[in-house]
Amino acid sequence: MIRTAAVVGAGLIGTSVALALSRRGVLVHLIDTDKDAVRTAVSLGGGVAEPPREPVDIAVLAVPPSAIGRVLAEQQAKRLAHSYTDVASVKHEPELAVRFGAPDPTSYVGGHPMAGGERSGPLAACANLFEGRTWVLTTCELTSREALNRALALVALCGAVPVVMESTAHDRAVALVSHAPHVVAALMAARLEHAPEEASRLAGQGVRDMTRIAGGDPGLWGDILESNAAAVADVLGELAEDLVSTVRALRSLAVVDVARRAEDMTSVIDMLGRGNAGRARLPGKPGSPAGAVVPVVIGDKSGELARLLAAVHDSGVNIEDVSIDHSPGKPTGLVELVVAAEAAESLAERLVGANWTVQRVRQVFPTAAAPRTAHREWPRPVAVPG
Amino acid sequence: MIRTAAVVGAGLIGTSVALALSRRGVLVHLIDTDKDAVRTAVSLGGGVAEPPREPVDIAVLAVPPSAIGRVLAEQQAKRLAHSYTDVASVKHEPELAVRFGAPDPTSYVGGHPMAGGERSGPLAACANLFEGRTWVLTTCELTSREALNRALALVALCGAVPVVMESTAHDRAVALVSHAPHVVAALMAARLEHAPEEASRLAGQGVRDMTRIAGGDPGLWGDILESNAAAVADVLGELAEDLVSTVRALRSLAVVDVARRAEDMTSVIDMLGRGNAGRARLPGKPGSPAGAVVPVVIGDKSGELARLLAAVHDSGVNIEDVSIDHSPGKPTGLVELVVAAEAAESLAERLVGANWTVQRVRQVFPTAAAPRTAHREWPRPVAVPG
Repeated sequence: MIRTAAVVGAGLIGTSVALALSRRGVLVHLIDTDKDAVRTAVSLGGGVAEPPREPVDIAVLAVPPSAIGRVLAEQQAKRLAHSYTDVASVKHEPELAVRFGAPDPTSYVGGHPMAGGERSGPLAACANLFEGRTWVLTTCELTSREALNRALALVALCGAVPVVMESTAHDRAVALVSHAPHVVAALMAARLEHAPEEASRLAGQGVRDMTRIAGGDPGLWGDILESNAAAVADVLGELAEDLVSTVRALRSLAVVDVARRAEDMTSVIDMLGRGNAGRARLPGKPGSPAGAVVPVVIGDKSGELARLLAAVHDSGVNIEDVSIDHSPGKPTGLVELVVAAEAAESLAERLVGANWTVQRVRQVFPTAAAPRTAHREWPRPVAVPG
Repeated sequence: MIRTAAVVGAGLIGTSVALALSRRGVLVHLIDTDKDAVRTAVSLGGGVAEPPREPVDIAVLAVPPSAIGRVLAEQQAKRLAHSYTDVASVKHEPELAVRFGAPDPTSYVGGHPMAGGERSGPLAACANLFEGRTWVLTTCELTSREALNRALALVALCGAVPVVMESTAHDRAVALVSHAPHVVAALMAARLEHAPEEASRLAGQGVRDMTRIAGGDPGLWGDILESNAAAVADVLGELAEDLVSTVRALRSLAVVDVARRAEDMTSVIDMLGRGNAGRARLPGKPGSPAGAVVPVVIGDKSGELARLLAAVHDSGVNIEDVSIDHSPGKPTGLVELVVAAEAAESLAERLVGANWTVQRVRQVFPTAAAPRTAHREWPRPVAVPG
């Protein structure tokens, strides 16, 4: 049970934790040398600015990874709390600092809520920030059960879903699914920097999605990559080997060396197939039924999308998902409505009847990556007359 | 003016062109050695199966790139049409084949409609497939004005937006904005193939978007990459140099060599900054006004999204864009509604009043990549107490 808590560091994450806990009736003490940040967090309803008179149930250290060992040692010396956790996006270095520097490593559990977004500071904080999100907790053989249970109670109060891991496994995992993808997106986006105007005009949804995360702040991401440099370098080093092989195979295909052709093609197709397999490892929306996509062309007039969604709503068909492709420089966009397979054709007919321009309905599979899904820009290899 | 046309190759693209032209009153002759494909295209309303008695205004060769030179030579010998174009996704090799092999290169214009999707075959065809899409036309110094104008009329009849380029510029552009991003997405996705279960659980929207196109069919994409191998290898070769430098800098940062630290960080941050710059080159939705994002938490119950969109519609606020983040294994999802900046706060209040869980509204910029947008998983560097 958590009745009292302290949050050290009143930034976006710290203040959001404070708001989530306060909303559930926990008395939260906000601590930060930046008194403005504390004032803001208090004014939002995050808790009180006074330090606790006796140890709180749990303290959340919302400070940078490199500061966690020092701040924990200081606060344990002051007996701030019975248990401690943090919210840093890397977990092994802080764990080492705690093990070898804190008075009581047993009362600390590492934490990493997988939430945030592009905002920062207490003003951007939000009590719902962690709702339904994964929140990793990292333990080692020193961690007490009591500390783990208090951290689990904290995660539950914030509405998040806990996952318990070892710190090194966490760091390798985020290197693989977050940090390395960020670098790879940036490397691809960097190729576009000096692209001729006409090349950008041909950019479609694929490259836009693929490079979306490359819009992140370089300084901030530099810090993140630095704090997990070895694990990120391992992933990227393996990727670089595959890349070099692929470039070699493509160069060889370009010079039309017939003898090597089959081998080069096998190498390229094998790499693409491994991409399929890896892509299929990413979980999709849980329990999605087989659905169908109803593609609808909309004009760029204000209100078109709302008008379409209202029409769908009126039809009584439930929208599972929706994606909008507003290609640049185009007068129209394509809205793809994902609905239950059995409802798709009747929805399409109804929309056509209401004068919407509807493309052919297609079936989709429940998993994110259907094995034979190709993004095709190529006519099927027809039997050529002649 | 186009009154009569021929389509050679009744696959997805060829049949879609036939449907689009037929709908506009053009008499289309469908030609394919696969009689079933022709029958299907005719039954869909694509035109007639009989060959024309006299030359049609334009013939569209919807055959693979490697076949275009040969098919054009054959059809020109038979006087099929006054003008010819094709729909292949690479343009330089076909142009060379036409220049050096066709009886009359002046009547040919290369073409590449930027449409398709994951379907294939005439049954997937659709008269609206090209609506609002870019359609590249490639010309050289031999191309007659008459041939270009007939191709432009064809593009207009299909509802697409023409862009005239040189064939080599087209191939370099698609290597940069389509083929290389596909390979890079596949290379990253391939790293996930043997990822531990717990790592996949930490995957968020970033890596899912980044690897989405890696779900494409390996055989089909192998063919595409082979046909444009040199241009793709050029882009990837440059990317490989950046990648190798980045891995070197990260390895150096991992061993905490203080003397080199600043230099390594500069190298990493510089790469990320070039990613920002490249990302900003991709055009966003044209003429988007400054907007604001209203993030709403929805449950995974059937009908939640439709219910939310209906509530927004009832409020009279126009939705500019919408994105849905259904994270895996989570009971809830986050819907981000993009609306006009001035309407956001009142919409948020109204939704809260209707018992929706709304996160803090944030402003967005009109361009796709705002320079200081960071995807933050990190508490702001707070002034640490003590």
